[in-house]
Amino acid sequence: MSTVLMNGEFIPREEAKVDIEDRGYQFGDGIYEVIRVYNGKMFMAKEHLERLSASSEKIGIATSYSISELTILLEELIAKNSLSTGILYMQFTRGVSPRNHSYPETVAPAFVAYTKPLSRPLDNLENGVGTITVEDIRWSRCDIKSLNLLGNVMAKQKAAEAGCFESIQYRDLSVTEGSSSNIWIVNGGKIRTHEANQFILNGITRQKIIQLCEENGIEVEEKAFSIEDLIDADEVFLSSTTAEVTPITAVNNVPVKEGNIGEVTKKLQDLFVEAIVGECGQIS
Amino acid sequence: MSTVLMNGEFIPREEAKVDIEDRGYQFGDGIYEVIRVYNGKMFMAKEHLERLSASSEKIGIATSYSISELTILLEELIAKNSLSTGILYMQFTRGVSPRNHSYPETVAPAFVAYTKPLSRPLDNLENGVGTITVEDIRWSRCDIKSLNLLGNVMAKQKAAEAGCFESIQYRDLSVTEGSSSNIWIVNGGKIRTHEANQFILNGITRQKIIQLCEENGIEVEEKAFSIEDLIDADEVFLSSTTAEVTPITAVNNVPVKEGNIGEVTKKLQDLFVEAIVGECGQIS
Repeated sequence: MSTVLMNGEFIPREEAKVDIEDRGYQFGDGIYEVIRVYNGKMFMAKEHLERLSASSEKIGIATSYSISELTILLEELIAKNSLSTGILYMQFTRGVSPRNHSYPETVAPAFVAYTKPLSRPLDNLENGVGTITVEDIRWSRCDIKSLNLLGNVMAKQKAAEAGCFESIQYRDLSVTEGSSSNIWIVNGGKIRTHEANQFILNGITRQKIIQLCEENGIEVEEKAFSIEDLIDADEVFLSSTTAEVTPITAVNNVPVKEGNIGEVTKKLQDLFVEAIVGECGQIS
Repeated sequence: MSTVLMNGEFIPREEAKVDIEDRGYQFGDGIYEVIRVYNGKMFMAKEHLERLSASSEKIGIATSYSISELTILLEELIAKNSLSTGILYMQFTRGVSPRNHSYPETVAPAFVAYTKPLSRPLDNLENGVGTITVEDIRWSRCDIKSLNLLGNVMAKQKAAEAGCFESIQYRDLSVTEGSSSNIWIVNGGKIRTHEANQFILNGITRQKIIQLCEENGIEVEEKAFSIEDLIDADEVFLSSTTAEVTPITAVNNVPVKEGNIGEVTKKLQDLFVEAIVGECGQIS
């Protein structure tokens, strides 16, 4: 049985329980992050923890640790669980307090983190995935990585029911993002993704891709595109912490690029793997 | 220490804990109800439990009880806690399962219910409350009474910070509802509230008020109104399970009807109390 980090203590997984009046349980009143672990090392931990901190500020939750304190605790958790390749999940909620919508005045935030082994999705990375398009019904603060995920959950479920990996959400005919990924199109060697505003989560993988493009002379535009643009694109791919750079080979059962993986997508996959190797060592 | 009903068992409050991978805790993936209790009797229990059932169907959670089974369990819970005037809170989540957005195939829903003593808000009912207006940033399935309440929580917090009881939310300049209430205006003796579509929760108190209006020859229109309509109204009030029919005496610090309680609002308060007395006996 693995170890869980809960409110500063390392405890056995089976003891990791929360009170029914934890505001995370009654309101989804909390924020979270998922960090990828390769070779026992966190990838882009600083960027994830900075975003956690930004999310917490946006909803007025005072996280209990500095980024450097949290990093040390998370490294210890990975070591205790002997995690090599997997993920580290963590969340802060506003804490336990008698149910009342407005923020309680004095309550300690509740923190939990755990790890899970998870292989790289080699088959998806090599062969791509199918997607469907669904209306984006979520709130207008998708920039906050909060626990209010029912819209995302319902979108992902629609994809699963259609036998697809992901749902591509659109709002007023503009593509926003996947249910748990960012969406990109490529045209004439130039890549494009929704701008980082309140309608999408600014993915850490998304940010890394933009940096890699800038460093490697690939033109990238952060600007919303339409469903028509999506369907007409030379290449389409998605990005996320666990999916890395995953080619999209079909949208609504219509093949993208006749179902072949595009050159720009492949180039970005290579650059992304190099970035992982640079930070965490050789991967397979 | 009170008793909690959890997954069919009556347990002491301090033992009421849930797993960290309960989907309610990680996704807000659940639905809830709050039922008012007067004189140890639930008010409009059937309507609340029917709505719980409707919410569960909308997000594909199979609740574990029929309405009549649940009614018996909830009555037993009220008796065990010797609750006279208060509330009964209950929620279903999709259950405990390794974190993954899409719905797990086989998992039992998790249920919890507890009671809390709560007096009627006599001061607010007699003197009214102040409100502010805030933009409605929530998702477009507010008809589902789900645990994704962060938008409501943030709106209520803004009201609290402004020294007000409630935030009145607007979307594209139409008033939708309060953060935990429905909003009504009165003009020339005729009352009006937002239609019951996907942008509001169709309050049980709201439904009772409409019924009472119809039975008592008060004209009622279910149609969205603007912020201007709100500010220009003869009377404004809000309704909810715990707030009943509460007069609104100010919007953004501007008095409604010079801060006096309107005649139609008073009439509806009286009719609503009669309805309570009819179902639960004399109240104070």
